[in-house]
Amino acid sequence: MPDKKYVYSFNEGDGKNKMLLGGKGANLCEMTQIGLNVPPGFTITTEACLEYINADNKLPDGVMEQVKAHMTELEKKTGKVFGDAHNPLLVSVRSGSAMSMPGMMDTILNLGMNKDTLQGEIEQTGDERFAYDAYRRFIQLFGKIALGIGDEHFDVPFEAIKKREGVKEDVGLSTENLKEISQEFLDVVHAQTGRAFPEDPYEQLDLAIKAVLGSWSGKRAVDYRREFNITPEQANGTAVNICTMVFGNRGDDCATGVAFTRNPGTGENVFYGEYLVNAQGEDVVAGIRTPKPIAQMEKEMPDLYRQLEELRAKLEKHYSEIQDFEFTIEKGTLYCLQTRNGKMNTQAMVRTSVELVAEGLISKEQALLRIAPESLEQMLFPRLEPTAKVQSLATGLPASPGAACGHVVFDADRAVAQKAANGKPLILLREETKPEDIHGFFVSEAILTSRGGKTSHAAVVARGMGKPCVAGADGIEVDVMARRAHIGDVVIKEGDIITLDGTTGNVYLGAVPTVEAEFSDELKTLLSWADERARLKVMANADVPEDAERALKYGAMGIGLCRTERMFNAAERLPIVLEMIVSETLEQRQDALDRLLPIQRQDFIELFTTMSPNPVTVRLLDPPIHEFLPSENQLLDDLIQLRHLRDTMRGSEVLSSTLSLLSGRNTSQTRIQQLADSALVEEAIEKKETILKKVRALFEVNPMLGHRGVRLGITFPEIYAMQIRAVLEAACACQKAGTEVHPEIMIPQVCTSEELIHIKKIVETIKHEVEASEGVSPVFKFGTMMEVVRACMRASQLAEEAEFFSFGTNDLTQATFSFSREDAENKFLPMYNEVGILRDNPFEVLDSNGVGKLMKLAVGWGREKKPDLKVGICGEHGGHPASIMFCHSIGLTYVSCSGPRVPIARLAAAHASLLEAK
Amino acid sequence: MPDKKYVYSFNEGDGKNKMLLGGKGANLCEMTQIGLNVPPGFTITTEACLEYINADNKLPDGVMEQVKAHMTELEKKTGKVFGDAHNPLLVSVRSGSAMSMPGMMDTILNLGMNKDTLQGEIEQTGDERFAYDAYRRFIQLFGKIALGIGDEHFDVPFEAIKKREGVKEDVGLSTENLKEISQEFLDVVHAQTGRAFPEDPYEQLDLAIKAVLGSWSGKRAVDYRREFNITPEQANGTAVNICTMVFGNRGDDCATGVAFTRNPGTGENVFYGEYLVNAQGEDVVAGIRTPKPIAQMEKEMPDLYRQLEELRAKLEKHYSEIQDFEFTIEKGTLYCLQTRNGKMNTQAMVRTSVELVAEGLISKEQALLRIAPESLEQMLFPRLEPTAKVQSLATGLPASPGAACGHVVFDADRAVAQKAANGKPLILLREETKPEDIHGFFVSEAILTSRGGKTSHAAVVARGMGKPCVAGADGIEVDVMARRAHIGDVVIKEGDIITLDGTTGNVYLGAVPTVEAEFSDELKTLLSWADERARLKVMANADVPEDAERALKYGAMGIGLCRTERMFNAAERLPIVLEMIVSETLEQRQDALDRLLPIQRQDFIELFTTMSPNPVTVRLLDPPIHEFLPSENQLLDDLIQLRHLRDTMRGSEVLSSTLSLLSGRNTSQTRIQQLADSALVEEAIEKKETILKKVRALFEVNPMLGHRGVRLGITFPEIYAMQIRAVLEAACACQKAGTEVHPEIMIPQVCTSEELIHIKKIVETIKHEVEASEGVSPVFKFGTMMEVVRACMRASQLAEEAEFFSFGTNDLTQATFSFSREDAENKFLPMYNEVGILRDNPFEVLDSNGVGKLMKLAVGWGREKKPDLKVGICGEHGGHPASIMFCHSIGLTYVSCSGPRVPIARLAAAHASLLEAK
Repeated sequence: MPDKKYVYSFNEGDGKNKMLLGGKGANLCEMTQIGLNVPPGFTITTEACLEYINADNKLPDGVMEQVKAHMTELEKKTGKVFGDAHNPLLVSVRSGSAMSMPGMMDTILNLGMNKDTLQGEIEQTGDERFAYDAYRRFIQLFGKIALGIGDEHFDVPFEAIKKREGVKEDVGLSTENLKEISQEFLDVVHAQTGRAFPEDPYEQLDLAIKAVLGSWSGKRAVDYRREFNITPEQANGTAVNICTMVFGNRGDDCATGVAFTRNPGTGENVFYGEYLVNAQGEDVVAGIRTPKPIAQMEKEMPDLYRQLEELRAKLEKHYSEIQDFEFTIEKGTLYCLQTRNGKMNTQAMVRTSVELVAEGLISKEQALLRIAPESLEQMLFPRLEPTAKVQSLATGLPASPGAACGHVVFDADRAVAQKAANGKPLILLREETKPEDIHGFFVSEAILTSRGGKTSHAAVVARGMGKPCVAGADGIEVDVMARRAHIGDVVIKEGDIITLDGTTGNVYLGAVPTVEAEFSDELKTLLSWADERARLKVMANADVPEDAERALKYGAMGIGLCRTERMFNAAERLPIVLEMIVSETLEQRQDALDRLLPIQRQDFIELFTTMSPNPVTVRLLDPPIHEFLPSENQLLDDLIQLRHLRDTMRGSEVLSSTLSLLSGRNTSQTRIQQLADSALVEEAIEKKETILKKVRALFEVNPMLGHRGVRLGITFPEIYAMQIRAVLEAACACQKAGTEVHPEIMIPQVCTSEELIHIKKIVETIKHEVEASEGVSPVFKFGTMMEVVRACMRASQLAEEAEFFSFGTNDLTQATFSFSREDAENKFLPMYNEVGILRDNPFEVLDSNGVGKLMKLAVGWGREKKPDLKVGICGEHGGHPASIMFCHSIGLTYVSCSGPRVPIARLAAAHASLLEAK
Repeated sequence: MPDKKYVYSFNEGDGKNKMLLGGKGANLCEMTQIGLNVPPGFTITTEACLEYINADNKLPDGVMEQVKAHMTELEKKTGKVFGDAHNPLLVSVRSGSAMSMPGMMDTILNLGMNKDTLQGEIEQTGDERFAYDAYRRFIQLFGKIALGIGDEHFDVPFEAIKKREGVKEDVGLSTENLKEISQEFLDVVHAQTGRAFPEDPYEQLDLAIKAVLGSWSGKRAVDYRREFNITPEQANGTAVNICTMVFGNRGDDCATGVAFTRNPGTGENVFYGEYLVNAQGEDVVAGIRTPKPIAQMEKEMPDLYRQLEELRAKLEKHYSEIQDFEFTIEKGTLYCLQTRNGKMNTQAMVRTSVELVAEGLISKEQALLRIAPESLEQMLFPRLEPTAKVQSLATGLPASPGAACGHVVFDADRAVAQKAANGKPLILLREETKPEDIHGFFVSEAILTSRGGKTSHAAVVARGMGKPCVAGADGIEVDVMARRAHIGDVVIKEGDIITLDGTTGNVYLGAVPTVEAEFSDELKTLLSWADERARLKVMANADVPEDAERALKYGAMGIGLCRTERMFNAAERLPIVLEMIVSETLEQRQDALDRLLPIQRQDFIELFTTMSPNPVTVRLLDPPIHEFLPSENQLLDDLIQLRHLRDTMRGSEVLSSTLSLLSGRNTSQTRIQQLADSALVEEAIEKKETILKKVRALFEVNPMLGHRGVRLGITFPEIYAMQIRAVLEAACACQKAGTEVHPEIMIPQVCTSEELIHIKKIVETIKHEVEASEGVSPVFKFGTMMEVVRACMRASQLAEEAEFFSFGTNDLTQATFSFSREDAENKFLPMYNEVGILRDNPFEVLDSNGVGKLMKLAVGWGREKKPDLKVGICGEHGGHPASIMFCHSIGLTYVSCSGPRVPIARLAAAHASLLEAK
């Protein structure tokens, strides 16, 4: 079929047909056809490639004829002649498939050079050294790619000459050296191939085309496609692009440069780039000459600068996107060699998105879609100054994002004391943290622990507070008693400054500069567009009024998860909670609860008022109560020390280091004096023993699956009763103050509708009591967490009792995989990810195939019973873009996530709607 | 509507219409109509009852007219006259609804008695005392039920007379006393109702009928129906049964008795019962006279005995079931008062089932269905002698069924030593057990622990071995060092005899007689019929060859679960396993595994050979490896003791009690001598420290959801590789010996098909190696446990890789409920059952609504991909009848359970098929 078209000029190829012309070829066609001055050229199709390979490396009939015809056209367009000794046409030969396969296939530059055209080059540039340098490069590249000669054959003579001349860098070689090298290279080719280097440019072209086509079935390319799962539907064969070489180094009317259509660092709408007169692209890269800012060109080459400005406008108009492009000016003619979407930081992306809309270049939808939701994180947390060059000292899990630096302190009491004393920024460094350390969190910039995972106490609390945290940095050995930590040979003492990056998990010695978070006006504008388009509502997880304030700033539309147990953590409350836990009788417990009630009620009043008129979902006590107690080992250590103290106290020496154990918190000097009395030691021992007994009684083999959530609420109904009363009384108080509030009571760990019915009865009773005493009827909803697999299986029955569902995907993921998160992340998940058994960490990316499938079933069963059922998600996945996409796809009503992730979630929710519409 | 029929004679009522006539009424009609000589009577319908209640306690028109007509008929049939002073007709009036509501409604006997008929009674019986006794009883009963007079009004004068006469028992009252009491009672009625006791029999009857009808809406009955969820569809209104009184105490031609148509203790086809001449039913119950065995009647009353034999045959023929019936002979006439299906022990049920089939009285299907599968347990485990009257000392969880008695021993080493010394039966009593105690299990009759639940090590291992176990008897305080245990005030020392009942969880001091298990020929016959009808196959869980032998005896059709880790538990193997676990390098671990390989291979050869040609499903290592190590607390205690020993050793006193800690096992005198040397102590300390370090490194927050099963197999592939090689080499060895074997390799804790693919590659590699070295290709299947929720969700994908599924419903239930079994059973499950949140313990009864629903989905998805997929269950539910029913309903291929439950499962599987067909 001699008529089959294998070759397309850049003027005629379809710029959208990447499958036929490859990505690069199609792009060159598009650029040419929108009127950019691209150096003329043409593309051999991927069909030719496949036929070549199928025919055992034989070019289809007609290809070379068509190539020759196009070469003749190039000669006409450029006025140069292929192989001419005075004004030679040189071309580049490049591969290019439909999918980018960087470095996987081959490029030959300056094809057409031989002994004759070399002279033409010298004539044209007046630069003999440049010409020989280009010549020897061409011989090696052609020798390697088209003739299959290994680089090492060229390296040996090349290095020998450099050594002889005492030259370290290539640029130190003289013209004579390069002449000699060129001759040596020609000899290498002769020796390796048994024949002279091909002088005929068309023979060169023929060999180069075949080499590029053949590279598609080469090992490198085949491996690459396998590795990255590139299927024939995505890319099938490579095209060959043959393009006129243009040169920016043929005189002072020549130049070369790179530019962005706007400032990629800030997004500002100014022309941004660099250029060099009489130079080639390599010179910019090599850094031998310092390029000039593009603005200077306006004076130096005003006409060409005007053309460049036109090019800039044309590019943005056509591509509706900031462009990063390369240009060359050859003898006063501006060529655009390449253009692509400009890579920018998030701040710039956001600013340009908003401005491009204002300029009418893109729609709001396009503005939203061009920003990856996850990338907003850069703007929402402080981060290390990107240019800071530092070596990390230790690495842990990136448990709560953001960067901070401060003075190390090893316990919460001293943190409070030091903050009060000098106000300097602090980093709390502990083996692990407990609720009793919570006052230390409040005064510290960030938390660092040597044990525990991303769901450890430290991690979860820090995330809730929006403070950076690195957890489980197991290279650090903490010696609290000595107020010292060891990282390898490095010793960190109290007061030493460290910096940590909770986004990467890195820990640095000393102060590394940080960059503050920026919540710009442009971001607000963009997110307001997102909210208009999103179907999912975005709520925040917030436990205390301060969290709620912050969540509002991030644009939260309510609170999807208020973990009431966090309210217990404040320093003045924990002792009451402890009292409640160690109570032997209902009366003792009720007494402690009675004291907690007004505190919780006040919290709720503040929370509801802050969020009015948005909903606030209050989850009743969830964790096993032993989580509020110190560990058994800690207590045993304390007791050993205390008993030892008792034994030695009658003597004169008292080990002061053991004293801090006495009260756990009050270790000021006066307190130490008071305690240096054996009666107090006895009392402390007794107290520790009581707690130890309780800790042992509460021991659970698998606390994650233990006595917690609604199970506690049913076995100790007085605890839930107190919390329910606090919610309803707070609601009444707000209503009476004229504040519209929408509290929602949410029950955790539910596995059967009977549990809901049981608690609902308590709610009803208390509601009637509160109505009677307050004189108004509290407005509220009653719903359930969906975090137990069985709850999902019984969604239809639960929907009869619950006004809303909220998926707790942290626990649901653990139960669905039978993975304990802490254990999995420490023991086998990394390997599972590494060997590809699991692509993602399911605790970070919602597992749509397993957990998600279960959720989808549950939503369906629930809505079968109650079609307008409100369904949300409040696990950490609620702030993860791909997971949000999935939540949208199964019809959830809202997602809830930590405050700082709310903007990310809002954008992701908009993406979900927009992509669904597509 | 005067024509409406409210009253049916026993001759005409429909014996099947319990809704209309009540259960008792219908039964009396049926008995009458099949020709039994029932005392004549009639029934007032439940319709009358409902109309009576709806009309505000007014009898429908016509009821009393119809009653009078039937009374006249009774007079004709009996030759007695209602209210007659010489030969009075007396009747009983009883309630009776469609559902049995024991004690909830009322009965009046001897209605028709008054001052006149009392004289007739005396005339008829010649027993004045009897007549007055009946009279005073009637006055009180009628007074109470028909007139609403509280018992206390009668009790006061009654007790006063007894006191005056110095009489303790009613039988001590004289005729005169009874006369006096009758008069006092008549006065009580007068005083309480304001009018004299009704002398008119028809007035008595009218009042009695109304009282019985009204009792349906009385508080007692309403409460009962609410408590037991009896709906109007099940029972609506009570009928009233009016029946002629007959008397066995009117002369020597009178008698009364109870009988079974066969021996209910053995099932033997002999007439079985007791009778008394000239007596009434109460006399038999009161125990004043000793009844005679029924056989004696053949001599005493040959004609009546013949009639009784006829009755016996007629009853069995009609009811196709062993009958338990009451009879009375009044003046030479035999009356059958009541008959019902005889309650028998299981042995008798089984024997009669088989014999009734042989006699053609029932079909094999009926024979199977009349035996509750669970009841077979009685025959399969030794049990306490049912007649033994003993008080339990402590109670724990019934962790492994069966009863045993023996001498208490507190550690495994001493158990072995004592068994070797005197061979006496032993009971191993420990706080909890560990794999290192396993040698103690082998030599003990039963295991008792003071801690742990039904899935504790002790429970699971004991069940596997078929030995009785009571676990978590937390009333027992064990002091191992002192070889003593305390139960309240009772001290149990080593060597003391105790008895425990693993079926109930009771522990007894001393030896309680036990009855051995009986696997009778009849049971074998019955189970062979079951196998013919069952669709489900029944496999056994068996870990070692001895288990397999036993399972075969129980009729297992293969091994559905062989837990390979159990093979590691034997005394000589555990040290190698320990070595493997504490290995620091792959080489060390491989070295230990190389020594385990031949041991496991030999186990498999024996197992496969024993079970040939049935399948043996081998589950690769499942539990987290720290389960093979001692606990941290244990090690810490040991170290404290050892260090103390080291410190004091230089002195002359060595505390011998601490020495037993040195090696953990070898504490013979010579060994103690050897060890009494500080270098050995140092070595022991070092060893313990190494293990402690490993224990800490392996610590998991939630071991149930931790690093176990296939996760271990992937992170330490050499362990699974050893096990796979052992299976495949064993298969080859058997095949070469001409033995047909069907091993199946099963992977635990799978959550994604990638895990299966990963292990499958290892299997394939080893298969090729084994083929090469053995010269034959091993026959085997490859499959997966379904015990992780995600596996169920991904069943379709798993089915692509697996040849079979096996549901591990123990773990699946934990994951579905998010209940840790040990924690749940200790902390909140009992309360959940108590308040009705969960009806059953889901670890005992498969939760069909939640776990079962998930299984059903998984089976569907799996078979969608692979229609002939073999699917089984190997959790403990596999031996539970209701759960087996469910497994049948969702189309499983087999169930697997512990050996002794195999017969139960076989019968349950047959029931499932038969009930489905119905």
